[in-house]
Amino acid sequence: MAKNTSVNWQFIGNEAAKKASTFTLGSYTSRIMALCDPKIKPILPPLSEAPETSHTAEKAVVKAVLDGSGNAYAPSIGLPAAKSAVAEFLSRDLPNKLTADDVFMTVGCKQAIELAIEILAAPKANILLPKPGFPWDMVHAVYNNFEVREYTFLREKNYEIDFDSVRSLVDENTCAILIINPHNPNGNTYSEAHLKQLAELARELRILVVADEVFRWTVFGSNPHVPMAKFSSIVPVISLGSLSKGWSEPGWRTGWLALHDLDGAFKSNKITSALKNFLAIDNKPATVIQAAVPTILEKTPKEFFERRQAFLKEKSDFAFEKLKDIPALTCYHQTEACTFLWTELNFSMFADINTDEEFCETLAKEECIVLLPGIAFGLKNWARHSIDMDIFALEDAFARLKSFCERHATKIKASVKDVNGVK
Amino acid sequence: MAKNTSVNWQFIGNEAAKKASTFTLGSYTSRIMALCDPKIKPILPPLSEAPETSHTAEKAVVKAVLDGSGNAYAPSIGLPAAKSAVAEFLSRDLPNKLTADDVFMTVGCKQAIELAIEILAAPKANILLPKPGFPWDMVHAVYNNFEVREYTFLREKNYEIDFDSVRSLVDENTCAILIINPHNPNGNTYSEAHLKQLAELARELRILVVADEVFRWTVFGSNPHVPMAKFSSIVPVISLGSLSKGWSEPGWRTGWLALHDLDGAFKSNKITSALKNFLAIDNKPATVIQAAVPTILEKTPKEFFERRQAFLKEKSDFAFEKLKDIPALTCYHQTEACTFLWTELNFSMFADINTDEEFCETLAKEECIVLLPGIAFGLKNWARHSIDMDIFALEDAFARLKSFCERHATKIKASVKDVNGVK
Repeated sequence: MAKNTSVNWQFIGNEAAKKASTFTLGSYTSRIMALCDPKIKPILPPLSEAPETSHTAEKAVVKAVLDGSGNAYAPSIGLPAAKSAVAEFLSRDLPNKLTADDVFMTVGCKQAIELAIEILAAPKANILLPKPGFPWDMVHAVYNNFEVREYTFLREKNYEIDFDSVRSLVDENTCAILIINPHNPNGNTYSEAHLKQLAELARELRILVVADEVFRWTVFGSNPHVPMAKFSSIVPVISLGSLSKGWSEPGWRTGWLALHDLDGAFKSNKITSALKNFLAIDNKPATVIQAAVPTILEKTPKEFFERRQAFLKEKSDFAFEKLKDIPALTCYHQTEACTFLWTELNFSMFADINTDEEFCETLAKEECIVLLPGIAFGLKNWARHSIDMDIFALEDAFARLKSFCERHATKIKASVKDVNGVK
Repeated sequence: MAKNTSVNWQFIGNEAAKKASTFTLGSYTSRIMALCDPKIKPILPPLSEAPETSHTAEKAVVKAVLDGSGNAYAPSIGLPAAKSAVAEFLSRDLPNKLTADDVFMTVGCKQAIELAIEILAAPKANILLPKPGFPWDMVHAVYNNFEVREYTFLREKNYEIDFDSVRSLVDENTCAILIINPHNPNGNTYSEAHLKQLAELARELRILVVADEVFRWTVFGSNPHVPMAKFSSIVPVISLGSLSKGWSEPGWRTGWLALHDLDGAFKSNKITSALKNFLAIDNKPATVIQAAVPTILEKTPKEFFERRQAFLKEKSDFAFEKLKDIPALTCYHQTEACTFLWTELNFSMFADINTDEEFCETLAKEECIVLLPGIAFGLKNWARHSIDMDIFALEDAFARLKSFCERHATKIKASVKDVNGVK
């Protein structure tokens, strides 16, 4: 062995994923968590824990493991029984019923989002995405050549979509608008009237609607969740979902993409075939979880979701109240559907903090609290707070947050503001 | 609603995956299966069923489901406990021990192969792949710009790698050689001496070795399996594996990639960072299966593997004998490690069949038997036969195969051959 001589190896790592990997929610979380004192368990970890799932779901997976029905490869478009069950589940609320052929199983909602983007990324096409919304990687990592245009929201109208911004962005190469409903991180749920207006606008603009509805099971405000596909006789809709948020087991990595076609537009415009082609070469969700999907969707008692919704409502109410005592953070809309609050940072009230990333990093170092900076969702100067924890942890977190903001507050800047009337 | 007017929608499906999707093993299987009489269950289905897995593995997953340890997101590089367990397992046979930091969890061995290719696909680089070997999609679908060069085997030396072909293909842009050991579809296992020669050749050529060892648990011939990383003090090695073949549950979609570094070459040449970057944005295997990996690797009794090996050996012996009665099909090497036999088709002996695809298609239509054509593995005029079934099914399959070949045999061609001495 010539081990003692040094070799000038001919391989070198491909840096194509370097930039995209910096912007994932996981990367932001890891970087911020790494700043916490390792001897103290951080508060508000948005990714590292999950509450208890339903016993129905557990038993369904156990059964699939023990009867061996999920041991083999599944077809690349998904296990037929899982596809049927998702079609039946989604059809409950819809005038235009789905069949198993309209549903495709994915590795969580993440792969469903990526697929929706991949199949639409035809040459020259552009797509409208929400700002704030997906982490940068969801889009740019998949297709660097796909042009992204970002639409905005009306804060004064409870974060409804700003249709004027949508209209101003669309041109003859725009293929789709992607919505998140319930919206993460804004925390709101769109009304039926708003979704109908969106459908009509999309039809007028000749673009389809992709609806990420992964948070549809954790709605606890006064607005019920209305699926976008209710309006699939106006506009073609692609809906995305997964078990992750509703059943509190993102680690099971099982989701779906459903095509709510209109007059065969998906077939004639090659969307269906593009989807099958990408699924044929892409990663597949575990068959053993897919095999459990029918029982999970049909048999989970509604009390499981009601219990979870009540838990989150209590935390949302509590956290929203606590935020009122922290003037440097403003939450314009109390979340009614997600596990997060979304707040604007008022930097005029900080002596020594100037960006959302700096805010989150300093907070982690000093208080061992992990918030995600707005930039992770495409919007600077905001922060996302998890509320998905017991009330004692939440109370502790907000007490530390308040103390942190007071410690970093500036009286000088505040008085300058008073004098000049500058916001 | 303006439903009654037709809309000229602005979306069109992306055709980027169209070509690649045609060449997956799943696509070949589906196309050939679709030719079988739907009223008859096809024989030799290589992808649609799996034999019983080990009770130890089942119980480990059940435990992970019930204790909730696999419900949350795992880090993108894998669950620490699973990484440790794989490192410890692989180290059993190695002089240079791995730690958890060297192991990365993947969505089956498929994602591990894709990642190995992605991280090496630097601009201008080329890679050596086996012919026959991976289905076309594994490579081309991932990085269209990565140049692939195909090395060959020495049939007369039990399908050892043809080192002359390797030498002739390498230039200053070659970064790696990928081997499959045990080899699918050739069915052989490389000797320790052959692997050491490969390591020395790769070092001389300054390229790394990627070793797909997914079939290491189903070795039943006289050659034991030797892991490539045994020679990681000569050449840097990336080894790939998964639970799929050893535990007969490809539907669990859980595998790994391990970096067997040499003098820090992976770190200094940015391989480690490239891998972490791609994993950060890529799909993840189910946490709930990862959580079971430590118990599965440590506790599965060796009797489970011995039983499976004995089962396959009996089928390999039986099928190899049966093939001797079918002169149109030649198997040069009886499989000693996989669930397949690999045979050359002698078209001079067929009256009306001229390609491997035509052979497989006609066989499916007439006899309801599914073989995969050699072209699916990159080599025309061959076919892969599954032997992973009970002896009665196998006997039936080979009886039908023999009758099929006799029915399509030509006496005219045979006599022309005799006269002209043309092969």
